[in-house]
Parts: sequence; C-alpha cells; structure tokens
Amino acid sequence: MRVGVLTGGGDCPGLNAVIRAVVRKGVRQHHFEFVGYRDGWRGPLEGLTMQLGIEQCRGILPRGGTILGSSRTNPFKLDNGVERIKENLAKDGVDALIAIGGEDTLGVATKLADLGVNVVGVPKTIDNDLSGTDFTFGFDTAVNIATEAIDRLHTTAESHHRVLVVEVMGRHAGWIALHAGLAGGANIVLIPEQPFDIREVCDLVESRFESHYAPILVVSEGAVPREGGDMTLSSGELDDFGHVRLGGIGDRIAREIETRTGKEARAVVLGHIQRGGTPTAFDRWLATRFGLQAVDAVADGDFGKMMALRGTAIARVPLIEGTGELKLVSKEEYAEAQVFFG
Amino acid sequence: MRVGVLTGGGDCPGLNAVIRAVVRKGVRQHHFEFVGYRDGWRGPLEGLTMQLGIEQCRGILPRGGTILGSSRTNPFKLDNGVERIKENLAKDGVDALIAIGGEDTLGVATKLADLGVNVVGVPKTIDNDLSGTDFTFGFDTAVNIATEAIDRLHTTAESHHRVLVVEVMGRHAGWIALHAGLAGGANIVLIPEQPFDIREVCDLVESRFESHYAPILVVSEGAVPREGGDMTLSSGELDDFGHVRLGGIGDRIAREIETRTGKEARAVVLGHIQRGGTPTAFDRWLATRFGLQAVDAVADGDFGKMMALRGTAIARVPLIEGTGELKLVSKEEYAEAQVFFG
Amino acid sequence: MRVGVLTGGGDCPGLNAVIRAVVRKGVRQHHFEFVGYRDGWRGPLEGLTMQLGIEQCRGILPRGGTILGSSRTNPFKLDNGVERIKENLAKDGVDALIAIGGEDTLGVATKLADLGVNVVGVPKTIDNDLSGTDFTFGFDTAVNIATEAIDRLHTTAESHHRVLVVEVMGRHAGWIALHAGLAGGANIVLIPEQPFDIREVCDLVESRFESHYAPILVVSEGAVPREGGDMTLSSGELDDFGHVRLGGIGDRIAREIETRTGKEARAVVLGHIQRGGTPTAFDRWLATRFGLQAVDAVADGDFGKMMALRGTAIARVPLIEGTGELKLVSKEEYAEAQVFFG
Amino acid sequence: MRVGVLTGGGDCPGLNAVIRAVVRKGVRQHHFEFVGYRDGWRGPLEGLTMQLGIEQCRGILPRGGTILGSSRTNPFKLDNGVERIKENLAKDGVDALIAIGGEDTLGVATKLADLGVNVVGVPKTIDNDLSGTDFTFGFDTAVNIATEAIDRLHTTAESHHRVLVVEVMGRHAGWIALHAGLAGGANIVLIPEQPFDIREVCDLVESRFESHYAPILVVSEGAVPREGGDMTLSSGELDDFGHVRLGGIGDRIAREIETRTGKEARAVVLGHIQRGGTPTAFDRWLATRFGLQAVDAVADGDFGKMMALRGTAIARVPLIEGTGELKLVSKEEYAEAQVFFG
Repeated sequence: MRVGVLTGGGDCPGLNAVIRAVVRKGVRQHHFEFVGYRDGWRGPLEGLTMQLGIEQCRGILPRGGTILGSSRTNPFKLDNGVERIKENLAKDGVDALIAIGGEDTLGVATKLADLGVNVVGVPKTIDNDLSGTDFTFGFDTAVNIATEAIDRLHTTAESHHRVLVVEVMGRHAGWIALHAGLAGGANIVLIPEQPFDIREVCDLVESRFESHYAPILVVSEGAVPREGGDMTLSSGELDDFGHVRLGGIGDRIAREIETRTGKEARAVVLGHIQRGGTPTAFDRWLATRFGLQAVDAVADGDFGKMMALRGTAIARVPLIEGTGELKLVSKEEYAEAQVFFG
Repeated sequence: MRVGVLTGGGDCPGLNAVIRAVVRKGVRQHHFEFVGYRDGWRGPLEGLTMQLGIEQCRGILPRGGTILGSSRTNPFKLDNGVERIKENLAKDGVDALIAIGGEDTLGVATKLADLGVNVVGVPKTIDNDLSGTDFTFGFDTAVNIATEAIDRLHTTAESHHRVLVVEVMGRHAGWIALHAGLAGGANIVLIPEQPFDIREVCDLVESRFESHYAPILVVSEGAVPREGGDMTLSSGELDDFGHVRLGGIGDRIAREIETRTGKEARAVVLGHIQRGGTPTAFDRWLATRFGLQAVDAVADGDFGKMMALRGTAIARVPLIEGTGELKLVSKEEYAEAQVFFG
Repeated sequence: MRVGVLTGGGDCPGLNAVIRAVVRKGVRQHHFEFVGYRDGWRGPLEGLTMQLGIEQCRGILPRGGTILGSSRTNPFKLDNGVERIKENLAKDGVDALIAIGGEDTLGVATKLADLGVNVVGVPKTIDNDLSGTDFTFGFDTAVNIATEAIDRLHTTAESHHRVLVVEVMGRHAGWIALHAGLAGGANIVLIPEQPFDIREVCDLVESRFESHYAPILVVSEGAVPREGGDMTLSSGELDDFGHVRLGGIGDRIAREIETRTGKEARAVVLGHIQRGGTPTAFDRWLATRFGLQAVDAVADGDFGKMMALRGTAIARVPLIEGTGELKLVSKEEYAEAQVFFG
Repeated sequence: MRVGVLTGGGDCPGLNAVIRAVVRKGVRQHHFEFVGYRDGWRGPLEGLTMQLGIEQCRGILPRGGTILGSSRTNPFKLDNGVERIKENLAKDGVDALIAIGGEDTLGVATKLADLGVNVVGVPKTIDNDLSGTDFTFGFDTAVNIATEAIDRLHTTAESHHRVLVVEVMGRHAGWIALHAGLAGGANIVLIPEQPFDIREVCDLVESRFESHYAPILVVSEGAVPREGGDMTLSSGELDDFGHVRLGGIGDRIAREIETRTGKEARAVVLGHIQRGGTPTAFDRWLATRFGLQAVDAVADGDFGKMMALRGTAIARVPLIEGTGELKLVSKEEYAEAQVFFG
C-alpha cells in the first residue's frame, strides 16, 4: 500500500513528530510505502512529491516546522482542483492520504472524503480551537512560551510602575491567553469570546496600582472592544476579519491605558515566537500518538476520520466533527479564571 | 467557615499553585478563613499552624516546593493520632480540611473521612500513578526535564560510540520513562511493569550500533530484570522494596552493557532535578484548577472526594478511587511505543 | 563599620546577586553591618531604609529584580539633595555606601564621591554600554532571551514567505542586537551607531528571498534611518530622544518593508522580557564577583571606584571611567559581523 | 586557496558555529575553497573528506555536535602518521589546515606546525582548562546546564532533610564546579585542584543542617580525597588517571556522607547532558568569532597560532601557549568563593 502525507496551514510545533510516527509505524508494522507531498494541498495538486521513509525522518522529532513544507492552497477554489488531485494520486499510485492540518486543511479533507478519496486527518492548530479533541499539539508549546514571558515580566511589573500588555496568539479563540494568563498569574485576560470594556479594564488597572503592584494583561490578538463601548477602532486599523492590523491590539490597548489612566504602559508582542521552535514533551507525545493512530486508521481502512485526544486515549472521530464548529472558551471557563483577575 | 490546608509526601512542582488557588477563591468568593498546617499530617497532629491568606500566597505560583512544608507522618501509625488530629482541628476552629498529597497522604484522608472528618483531597504524584485521574500535576514538569536531557544526549550519542542510560523517576510505574522516552526519541525504554531481559537489551544495543548510531536508553528507577533471566541483583544491592539502592539501576545496567557488549556505556541519573523547580504551564493550570475545584467542594459540603482530571474537566471522585490501586502502564500502552525502539 | 547599599535605574538580572555577595562577604569576613536603602537615591534622600543581613538575602540569587527596589531619583536635581543624603547617612551611622546602577546612578555616585562621601560603585546596564568594563551583568541574560526568540523564528522564516523583525533593547548602543544577531544567525542587524538606509535593507530582504529564504532582522530599539535617506520619521512618531515612540521602530520597519517589497512582514517586540526573570549563570557569576570586590574595596577604604571586568579579573577603576562616555559598537565590530548578513 | 577543516576530541557545544564562521567568511571574503576532514586527525590521515561549503553550513549554528565528526586519533602514535597526513593534504590540494580541538588535537597541530604544515588552531574544551585564553566555548553552556540543575535542587534541599551531591564535568580542573557552584548557590564545592577532607565536608554538612537547611554539594568528576585523610579509594574503584570509575565520585561521596552523618544523601550525575545540545548565546558568539579570526589568520599566512579570547578581543597566540600547561583554579580563586560555602 502507498500512502501520501501532507501538512497544511500555519506553523505548529509537532508536525514533524506526526510525520515521523506515521512513517515509522507505517513502514515497520504495516509495510506501507510513503509519498511525501510538498506544501500542503499544492503537493497533490501539482504533483510535488518528495521521498519519505525512515531515513528522511531521522532527527526531526524535536524540530519545529515541517519537512514537507506547507501552504494555504485550497483545491476547491481552483479550476479542476479535485480532478487534478485525483489524477496525481492515481499517477503516484497512492491509495490513501494522511492530511495534517487545521480547519482549512481538514475542511478540504472532509470534502475529498465525500468525493471518495481515502483520507485520514490529523488535527493541528496552535490556537486549540478545533472541536472534537481535548487538545491539539502545538498549543502546549505556545502556552509555555507565553507563560515564560509572563514569568519574566513579573520582575518588572513588581519593581516599576508600568503596565505590561502581552499580546498572544488566538484570532477567534482565547485558549492561549486563558491558559497562559492562569499559568503566569496575569491580572487581566482579554479574549475574543468576551468583548472587553476599556473602562472596566482601566478600573482594574487602577485598583491594582492601589495595592502597589503594576498589572500584567494578557490579550489574545483577536480580542475586541465591546460594541457601543468607550473604545472604538477606526476602519483603517482593521483587517478583513475585523481585527486590529499589524502591530496589533496589544499595542492599541497599551496606548488607551496610558491615555486614560496616566500610567506608563508597554506592549510585548510575542508573535511568531509562539509557533516556532522545538515542541514541548506533551506536544511531541500527542503528535506522535496522533501519527501512530492515523496510520493504523489507514491500515484499518477507516477513512473520513480524524484523530482526537479524549482523556488519555486517541479516538477516531468523523472529520466533520473537527471542522464543523470552532471550539471557543465558554463563559463558565472564563469566569472560573476571573477569581485571579484584578 | 475555617478551612485547614496541608501538603504531604515528596516534592512535586505545582503544590504552591494548588494552595494559592484554594486560598484565592476561598477568600474572595466563599469568604472562608484558612489555617495552614505545616509538614503534612504532622501539622494537625502536633498543632503546627501558620497564617495562610492571600498575602502569603503572593508570588508562589511559579515556585517549586510547598510553602506549607511536608512530611511522611502517618497519624494512623501513632498513638492516639486520630484523636489528636480531631482535637487540634476543633481547637483551631477548623470545619474542613483540604489535603494535598499522594497515595499515603490521601490514604490517611480516606480513613479520616470515614471517621467523620470533613476532608477533601487533591491528588499529587510526579509519577502519575494515581488512579481516577487522567494526569497528576508535577508529571508534565518531570517529563519535560527528562526530555530536555535526552535531547542534549542525542548530540553525544550521534558523535561517539557510547551507550547512554538515562535513569528517571518511577518506583512502581513507568509513566515518566514512557513519555520522556517517546518525546525524546529514546531507543529503548525499560519500566517496572515489564521486567527486562538483559540479553534482549544488549541485542538491541548491538543492532543499533550496526546502523551506526549509539543507543539512548531511558530506564525507570524501579525497572527490574526478568526473574530467572541472565542478570541478577544481589540482595546487598537491593532496598526494602526490592529495587536497586542508591546510585541505581541506571548505573547497574550501564555496567552490564559494557561487560556484555564491550561498548562503553554511561549513566545519567537525573534524580531530584525532576521534582524541583518551577512547574510547566500545564502543571500550573492543572494544579490551579484542582485547587479551585477543591475549595468549591468544601463550599458544597461535598466531602470524602478527591479532584480528578477527566479530559479537560475537573471531576470530583470518591477518595477511595485514587488510593485503591496504582495506575500502571498497560501492556498495550508499552507496546504502542515499541515501534520506536531499537 | 556600617555600610549602606542601594540599587538605581532600570531592572537588570543580577542585582540581587550583587546585594547577596556584598552582604555575605561583608558580614562573614569583614564583620560589617548593613543598611538597605530603598528605591535608589530616594532611599538615603528620604531616609527609607530596610533591614539587610544574611537572612534577607536567602534565596535571592536566582531572582530577577532587586529586593531593595529602585528609582530614577537624582538628588542633584532636588533642593538640598546632597545635604539631605549626608544628613541621613550620618543619622543612620553609615560610613560608606555601595551604589549599584547605570550611567545615572553612578553619575550621582561620582559627584558624591567628589563631595567627600565614601562611595563605591557597581556598574549595571543590560545594554552593556558602560565604559571601563568588558561586560556588565544582565547583558548576557538579555542576549540569551533574544537569541532563543530568534531560534524559534527560524522555523517560521523557513516555512513561510514572511519577513520577521525582532526589536531588542538598546537605546544608544547596539550590543544586544549585535550579539543576539550573531548568535541567532539573523540576516540583517540594525543598530543605533550605524543609521540604516531603508532601500539597502529592502534590497537585502529581496535578495534573501531570491535564495528561497525569508529573512530575519534584529533591530535595536534605538536604530534610526540615515538622515537624508528614503525613510523619514514624522515628529509625532518621536520621543524626546529622537527615537520612535511606543510600539517602536521594529513595527515601523516591518511596515516599510511590506510597502516597499510587497512581502508580508511581522514585528516581534521582546521589550521587558529581556530585563526580567532569572539571570544566566554568567550574569550571576559576574554580579557575585562585582559584589565581593565592592565590599572588599570598602574594607580597603578604596572609595570613588567602580568594579570592572577585565578579562577574567575584577578590577577597580575610577568611577569617572564608567560614567564618562558610552561604550558603543565600533565600525570594525559591526563590519566583522556583516559577513553573515544577507 | 584550499583550506582543510577538522574537529577533534570530545563533544563541545559551539563546534558547528566555528565551522560555519570559517566557511562563511572564507568563501565570501577570502574566496577560499574548503575541504572537510572527517573524524578529527583520522580525516587527513586516511583521506576521509566531505564537501564543505556555505550550503553544508546552513542551519548548523544552534546545533550541538559537529558536522565533521570527531575522534581521538593521534597521528604521532601511528606508523608514518605524519607522512600520510602530508601526502593526503597534497593530494587534496590543501594549502592550510584549521584544527579545532582541545589539548590533544592542538598538541598534534603544534607538532605538525613545527614540521612545516600550515596550521591554525581553534581551542575547544568544555572544561575551560586551556591556557592562553580567558574562556573556551562550550564552557558557558555546561555551566548553565549545571546551574539550572542546582536551581531545581534547591526546592528539594529546602523541603527535605536530604543532602544532594551534583557531580559535574572537570577531570583535572574545577572550573565548571566553581562557576556553577557560585551561580547556583551551592553550599560546598569540591574540585580536583584542592583535595578534600571528608571529615571537613561532613562537618559542613552537619552545621548546615543545624541552621535547618539541607546542603547542596557540587563536585567535579575529578575531585579526590586528601591523601592520608579519612576517606580512601580502593584501587578497584580507580581508572588509569586515578579517578573514581563509572558512576563516580559524586555517588561515592554521597555514600560516605550517609555513613558518617546518618543523613540521607543522593547523587545527581549530569554527565553528558553538559556537553550536548544547543550552545548558549555566549558560546555561539565566542565560537563564531574564533572561526572568523582563524580564517583571517590563514588569509594572513599567520600559521602556528591559536585563537584566544582576551577581554572582548580575539587574539592570535602561539599554539604552544594553549597546549603547554593546563589552566587550573588557583587557591585564590577557590578561596574567593568559599565565603559562600557552609
């Protein structure tokens, strides 16, 4: 049996660990052959392949990025995209495909599965906002990096009278902000799911100063002010998703706090640091087990499924479960953490 | 309401995070007062208390150890132990007790609950071998430390012809060895649950050298040779639990490999490094949520329970579930990882 | 003999290590008593003292910040500032003062020494721009944090077509940018000492893309465009020092690159992360030895001196040597690194 | 001009950084061609070469180990070793050789230089015991790893009544133990240069317990008991150098302390963790600058020299200076640190 493997979407620590596990178990236990498709769906679309065997996977477990490359190419937005993919799979003698990616990549996988392609999905998102699985790999790494940053900032917050705003990843979901805020002992956490009122934020900032500490805020890049509230973003500041552009909301909030409270405020924008570099042990373990289970699913002919963490077990759930709806921070989960705010 | 808090047993990153969450939510939301009991069960036994409020918990989230101190004192092994505890609780006006600890500490809690003491338990074991919960805090920190060590050793294993044996924690259960071995890309993992055959180990070592790489072994401190096998431990080498004493099994295995294969072998004994220092973000998150839920259980009068991670939710399970039986690595879980061995 | 100790200026990992060394050696070997002055020169100015003995210094070696607090108060800018300091020193029975700080703090120390106060200085600047010493503590920590960030960004730079701009500390001197750029393998390093031409920068960016890699830029917060060049900063963007305000030059350069080359560009602003948290081993060693030597200088009555690293030895040099002129990156040092650029 | 490059001796973080700097500057600025010799002196001896250009050096800056491989082969101990090297250099058209290594590797280089080979040396030893240079690369990495381990152990030392013995590298010189001991706040540091009296060590251990803290010892692997003292090592325990074999002195000292004081004692043997993995920023900077200067020395025809750090400058000193005599910890340097012991 010949199995194609591809990775799509943004960077995420653990991609190489999935690939290695798939290949190691596939070759050793199932006697599969593998074809590496380069740059996400562009690979099978344009017939971009690379050799993929145990040798190619040596030493990649601790490495960030993906040896297969990635892209955001969507074959359904291109002329004859699906036909070209089917043709290339046939030409390469590929019987089944393992697609590792987020919402978009798995969305394509879901539709291809409906069209008869033998596909198995492995969920990937550093934002942890995919439904159907307790956690996705990459998330733990991002949270640890953000937490270490907050740890270091406490020194400064304690010894100076300066507000620190840490902007972390999370376009639509506040998981990184919530977990890193809890783990780092932040005083205020702002997430996309709960639009903030800048006056309440400034009140918290000031009350914190009254107890002689400078506050640390953790802000998702997708955090937004409450509509009708006191802070408005001009359309020039917004991108197509209605989020603050380049530089970001962290900086914008810092400036608002300075203006409104008269306290010095500084933004720290972690940006891509959160999605590069070596994965944590948890992410390597999760990614590895996703890979092992995905290649077993192929061996079982159990297609149209994606891997999911349920407790400590890896389950196979219908692809549609992961791609149907985003997993967002609930009001209860946000409220649970609020006892630490202020 | 006055609530006592104590921590028992060995060190474990995250203890302070539990204490902080208990106090923060208890004071702010439930308006509890707290009494800190020092040094595990010795505290309520001998009336050793310390002040415990929000001020005492400032800055402790990232710190290893426990501000309450710890001990292995077991009141059931002492004359009138239970009576003395009841008397001291009464004297201190304590209505309920939150006990944070492992098998032994929670075993005492279970019995005290049966004797009418209002007690809630928070499970703690770096070895992750407590039943009833997906994970315990401290484990993720230990696995990350061991994984970083293995990462560094790969450099040497690649450039020299030297076998490296990493001894990690795990008296009865091989969870740390299994997870760190998987995450670090070790070639052989030996755990207490699966007694090893030294000849098979040496065969794997030699076959690894044939493909021009030196192997890395990860060995639980409680790993044991198969009975009737080729390697025997003299009684002088063993402690009361039948494990190799001080210095340990890692060193012993390294010497056996040297003798049997003629290859140079070196042991790295991580020891207490795995249980000290700052917790990972995951462990801080888990410990914090255990603490929040434990103090809510007290508020609900839901005694005789211990906190447990189930997926991403914190559940309350009967104390007996955690202390009844050790959670060991199953044959299937060990087999899953074996595709990477050799 | 009674010795006062104070710390002034911005945060810098290693301050606590100096204090601990001063006190440990002072008490044990020289039988000194110590007075801790709080918040820099505000301490002796307003008579703000704290107890300072071996007990107060327990456990502070690995901690960021300063147990004495800090400020930017300058007694020479206040009415009767010097008199009030002299009075308070007399009142507290303080015979000599150890002042730990940067250009400003040591500048005050220099003048006080001229006015007959027994003062010894310990140089402190994370920017490493103090003359008279090979290195200052805090710098190595900052460089390591920036280097780890760059390490992680390489993953993303390799797998996406996105320019990454890392803004690091350095108002007047480019030492952090130069060292972290070299250690992290950055493609372009922009420092205050060498005003940049945005067209040259964009040419390097584009030539880098031609070899199929996205570039990483490291930029000092004090980097400035060449006068008369193609990029100008409006006065509204500048602060009193002529530097780009809040948010910063990193962001500004990223936007220019986007506009001029059409390539996506993102800024990572490390900010205060670089000056908080635990010091590296080098910084602890250097800070500790500065402290030991400073207290010996007091014992020797060798006042008006500051400590300096010369090779591996700690020398005592006149305070004026450290505060006279900034130590800047020379053309030769910048040129040495340029072989790695592009 | 064609230049050969080789790396010899044990692993040391920074080797790849030297190679990369040599090649980058050699190709770009001096238009040299390079020949990579594999496995130390075995390379030119047996004609084992590999391609070495800018492409081969991509991405190696942060990696431990050496892409050229290493060995301890000494051509002077082999028949016609020198002749064979000269023949192979001639055959490969190599005009000059850059040898990166420690005492042994540079010892060979020194003799070859005397015999007319155009050789330039780059000093390498994680132990930091090479004369003629302030520091060698690899040392800072080792010290940081040991310091982080000690940091974590403080938690345990504080909360339990258990002596912890950390064994670090250093066969002949105690630099790693001294620096990590100072930076980590260890209570006792034992180094090869100052044979210890086990009774004095146990007295310090006991006095430490009297102030309610458990002590942390840092011990060089080459530490030895004072002759005629109370602790003797049987010849069976010793290797050819008179040091305690496998497992080591750390373990041996822990056992002695247990026996003599009745306190529980545990050894942590860091071993090869100290010499593998990614280098610190300081080591990358130093290694890079050694490489840049070495290739300039070749361009200048300045042979028979080795690179040396002097303050912040890279100097070229006669090879014999580095290989003549070991750089040991002086009595004064050891005494300076003793104020922190006990």
